[in-house]
Amino acid sequence: MRTRLSTRERREQLLAIGAEQFADRPYDEVEIEEVARLAGVSRGLLYHYFATKRDFFASVVDTEVERILRLTEPDTSLPLFEQLTAGLDAYLDYVDHHRSGYRVLHRAAVAVDAGIRRICEASMATQQQRILTALGTHVEPDETVEVAVRGWLMFVITVCLDWLDRPTLTRADLRDLCARTLLAAVGLDQGPGPTDER
Amino acid sequence: MRTRLSTRERREQLLAIGAEQFADRPYDEVEIEEVARLAGVSRGLLYHYFATKRDFFASVVDTEVERILRLTEPDTSLPLFEQLTAGLDAYLDYVDHHRSGYRVLHRAAVAVDAGIRRICEASMATQQQRILTALGTHVEPDETVEVAVRGWLMFVITVCLDWLDRPTLTRADLRDLCARTLLAAVGLDQGPGPTDER
Repeated sequence: MRTRLSTRERREQLLAIGAEQFADRPYDEVEIEEVARLAGVSRGLLYHYFATKRDFFASVVDTEVERILRLTEPDTSLPLFEQLTAGLDAYLDYVDHHRSGYRVLHRAAVAVDAGIRRICEASMATQQQRILTALGTHVEPDETVEVAVRGWLMFVITVCLDWLDRPTLTRADLRDLCARTLLAAVGLDQGPGPTDER
Repeated sequence: MRTRLSTRERREQLLAIGAEQFADRPYDEVEIEEVARLAGVSRGLLYHYFATKRDFFASVVDTEVERILRLTEPDTSLPLFEQLTAGLDAYLDYVDHHRSGYRVLHRAAVAVDAGIRRICEASMATQQQRILTALGTHVEPDETVEVAVRGWLMFVITVCLDWLDRPTLTRADLRDLCARTLLAAVGLDQGPGPTDER
């Protein structure tokens, strides 16, 4: 029994199934046949949308990269501390509501080819640049700050993946952990600010 | 012209060449023939020491894991802040003097099989446990602290890999960056201590 979906809906459905599949197992173990079966379409139709398995995977990654960057678009009119907490809230929202997408982005991508790695690195670079822009009015953006921000992004990814596997912390604790770690990493005192009030 | 080496020396020589090779390129691009050529031995002799390429790689990783854990063995008799700075100094010494080994450990390992990933994860777990032990007298080792320490280990790895590629920071700055970030992550104020005097 096949469901009639528009081209756009079908594409989104396949990408969502792909995110689930690639999140849970290594790339090599994902079977295109299984994805087609779960979508209720033929293997041929799937290959009509995505020419190769590699293309399919790249589209899954790309979709999630676009989504996370869109959802975490900063409001640069806010003061630094509000931007930090609002940005973290938006980021954790994505992590929470797109668990498979998040896992795909950070677990599967390392194992695959240079093209896909480049997509992920460009996304990291965008996040880093946004943070450096926000910090710009408070700290001199020297090499230490740049390195600290990149390190902190990996810190955030690690604690978020951990949190998806074992949700022992509340989201508020997770957010505060990330916020105070960034401020210390870039050498900003934790000064008074709305970060502490929740 | 082959050099006569003892079995142990030959093994160490091959592992050192392996570390260089695996550090610089993806696993699939490393050629056993090239390793043998660089060592001045036959392919057959190399396979006498390591049955397969996978075994060879696992031995390279294992050697570096052993080395880094041995070199960063904590002196648990020291107070926390001394342990932190002494531990970071020992760690950065390893990073500095075993660059290929460090890159192999953290770049190549992700791409390979479950067995090798387990070796790396066990090493991370050991480091995490050491840090939790050291922190134990100062903070309640709750879930936040555990998550924070794991996140911080990825922070350290990221800034160290960065530093090997682009040594823009001094080692002292790198150490201070790591130290203050850990203290903030685990919620310890940076209190007075020898961390600030150098």
